[in-house]
Amino acid sequence: MSEPTELTEPTEPTSLADRAAELDAADPLAPLRDRFLLDDGVYLDGNSLGALPAGVPDRVADVVRRQWGELRIRSWGESGWWTAPERIGDRIAPLVGAAPGQIVVGDSTSVNVFKALVAAVRMAREAGAETAGGSGGTGGGEGRDEILVDASTFPTDGYIAASAARMTGCAVRPVAPHEVPAALSPRTAAVLLNHVDYRTGRLHDLPSLTAAVHAAGAYAVWDLCHSAGALPVGLDEHGVALAVGCTYKFLNGGPGSPAFLYVRADLQERFDSPLPGWNSHAEPFGMRPDYEPAKGAVRGRVGTPDILSLLALEAALDVWEGVSVEAVRAKSLALTDFFLECVAAHVPAGRVESVTPAAQERGSQVALRCADAGEVMERLIARGVVGDFRDPDILRFGFTPLYVGFADAERAARVLGEVLTGS
Amino acid sequence: MSEPTELTEPTEPTSLADRAAELDAADPLAPLRDRFLLDDGVYLDGNSLGALPAGVPDRVADVVRRQWGELRIRSWGESGWWTAPERIGDRIAPLVGAAPGQIVVGDSTSVNVFKALVAAVRMAREAGAETAGGSGGTGGGEGRDEILVDASTFPTDGYIAASAARMTGCAVRPVAPHEVPAALSPRTAAVLLNHVDYRTGRLHDLPSLTAAVHAAGAYAVWDLCHSAGALPVGLDEHGVALAVGCTYKFLNGGPGSPAFLYVRADLQERFDSPLPGWNSHAEPFGMRPDYEPAKGAVRGRVGTPDILSLLALEAALDVWEGVSVEAVRAKSLALTDFFLECVAAHVPAGRVESVTPAAQERGSQVALRCADAGEVMERLIARGVVGDFRDPDILRFGFTPLYVGFADAERAARVLGEVLTGS
Repeated sequence: MSEPTELTEPTEPTSLADRAAELDAADPLAPLRDRFLLDDGVYLDGNSLGALPAGVPDRVADVVRRQWGELRIRSWGESGWWTAPERIGDRIAPLVGAAPGQIVVGDSTSVNVFKALVAAVRMAREAGAETAGGSGGTGGGEGRDEILVDASTFPTDGYIAASAARMTGCAVRPVAPHEVPAALSPRTAAVLLNHVDYRTGRLHDLPSLTAAVHAAGAYAVWDLCHSAGALPVGLDEHGVALAVGCTYKFLNGGPGSPAFLYVRADLQERFDSPLPGWNSHAEPFGMRPDYEPAKGAVRGRVGTPDILSLLALEAALDVWEGVSVEAVRAKSLALTDFFLECVAAHVPAGRVESVTPAAQERGSQVALRCADAGEVMERLIARGVVGDFRDPDILRFGFTPLYVGFADAERAARVLGEVLTGS
Repeated sequence: MSEPTELTEPTEPTSLADRAAELDAADPLAPLRDRFLLDDGVYLDGNSLGALPAGVPDRVADVVRRQWGELRIRSWGESGWWTAPERIGDRIAPLVGAAPGQIVVGDSTSVNVFKALVAAVRMAREAGAETAGGSGGTGGGEGRDEILVDASTFPTDGYIAASAARMTGCAVRPVAPHEVPAALSPRTAAVLLNHVDYRTGRLHDLPSLTAAVHAAGAYAVWDLCHSAGALPVGLDEHGVALAVGCTYKFLNGGPGSPAFLYVRADLQERFDSPLPGWNSHAEPFGMRPDYEPAKGAVRGRVGTPDILSLLALEAALDVWEGVSVEAVRAKSLALTDFFLECVAAHVPAGRVESVTPAAQERGSQVALRCADAGEVMERLIARGVVGDFRDPDILRFGFTPLYVGFADAERAARVLGEVLTGS
């Protein structure tokens, strides 16, 4: 693991604006900004709430006025409401490296973490029981009684993991992601990991950690909230079993838009949900008293899908037309590198410290440690540069390559310098 | 319990249209129809998906364009996004007879059934343990290992109850609601009941069943999907402990709009959620690794609230301005009685049979058993009378007094008669 990136030697400030203009002119993704409704500010909080895609307002108006207001219940079929969770899942799939039929959209990230973790524990025990001939001893079956959780996780994942553990007879053990391989044991049932740390922006090694967890007979659940739509995830390529993610950050689905759940195709038959609602029934309109789970990703559904939010998200995903995540990643790294260079040039030495790792271990954000970070962020926002503050001393700047450019990065760093020098 | 209502003697058909006109003219709720966007058809499926309130499209457009598109993350505070779940809960509260501070909105009904049932089991065991001095024997504490479930429930409640039981070490026992008092025992932890049966429209006796369950040291969870907004529920008056309900039927919140959860004020400290997300933390932005539940109804929240759907629901609730549920109930009974009278007049004898109970035991719907019900409903819909079909032989007609009138009821019965006589 690399150390946080050093802030490099100052460059002459005036030249940075020129370079930003050149970089923007050469950027093949620059025209995508027109796919969003934006103002003249610099919005570096797309990793909290993505900006509004231009096509969303009209689509939502149609969903409300025509689909709901005129067609009403007929829209469950005619407007494709009923199949929206899996259809929109298939729209997200290529952005996270998944073949169709493995993702459903619905419920919050927290609820999906619960589904995935409980299912992971059950699968690990079932697999262990098979391997161990049902002996239930350590090494298989019920002997798996521990859930490892990324110690620096976004808190809700930890709270939900504690509940999943309590309800499946497991204990939770917090572990730093890079220490997971050493912490795995025959007792490990499941491991909950973040692809990108929400605070520092550190990108964890999904391929090797997944392989290590699986080699130990356990299942990893990956939280992709800060990577989906920001960088290649490669779910299928790396054999990930279970993953969840939100859609309101880099996927621009709108405030609190529904989260997604990925269940690898060959594991779907064994996905034993703790929330077996009627929407995941093999015959949902049969109104049958006994639960028989549907085949496929649909098995991850629960209750009636939240149509307004789902279809807003579907419209938001149109911005990805013709865009590769690889190109987004390349621009993201260039943007964050350039931002760090501009910070080094514009901000007095020693006033901030980057806690974001070097490029290969970085998500799509830069986190700067800064005295009085909360107050500094307020002043940045007042000057049109919107990032966010994470307690106690982190300025967090998210870079969404679809609508953030190099001039934005330069301006943000320049305004930060002005704020910190009181100019 | 009364038997299903007999269809009364035929009345002269021509007089019914005149009577309908008189009843509509005298109906104090008739002007409320203008608060909805409707067409010339007869919409009797508001118990599946409520019609579009007139104020919703503009409100949603503002939420999308201004709150999300312009204010972006500032809207969590400035537009009241963060507090929407409990604020909108307080808007629903008077419609179900609850004082403020006891209802939160969010997640699907299925997910809320899971929260409420697991919490009910935990509370019953805790209370039992206290009573029995922690002995854990039958009669208290862990001895409570059974969940009774309304045998005719909407299937998802049964599936979720089975999961809640599995995860709390309980067994599920299906029981007809009127048999619940006799089925209660010191082993009963929780009872899941529907206020109104989704198929027959039978209204169950919430006050006496709640009292019986509590007297047995267990907790009842009431599913109000088919009663909230249709008739007085009286949650506080009858000492209900826990309730859930959907908002897209008689509350007109839109397709798949978020459900609500009621936790009685004096039980909130003991509400131990199986889905302890960051939104129910005492200090959600403290990002603390340990979960400390918030006080109040907020404790029922989980993940980031689904803002577009929540605020559409909030706008939809404006139609209740100045409307009492008691007046809605009076009109609902008059409408359903009149509809049954019109059916008796217009439909050939013996062709349909009402399975809906008499007024005092009826929700806000009429269910008619009918041969070829699926095909009959298709033909009704083709003629502008929209109800729904419930397998295998039920024509279901929901009466939403806010926008359905007596002429609608007469026309629906007349068209049904025409369809059944092939005229």
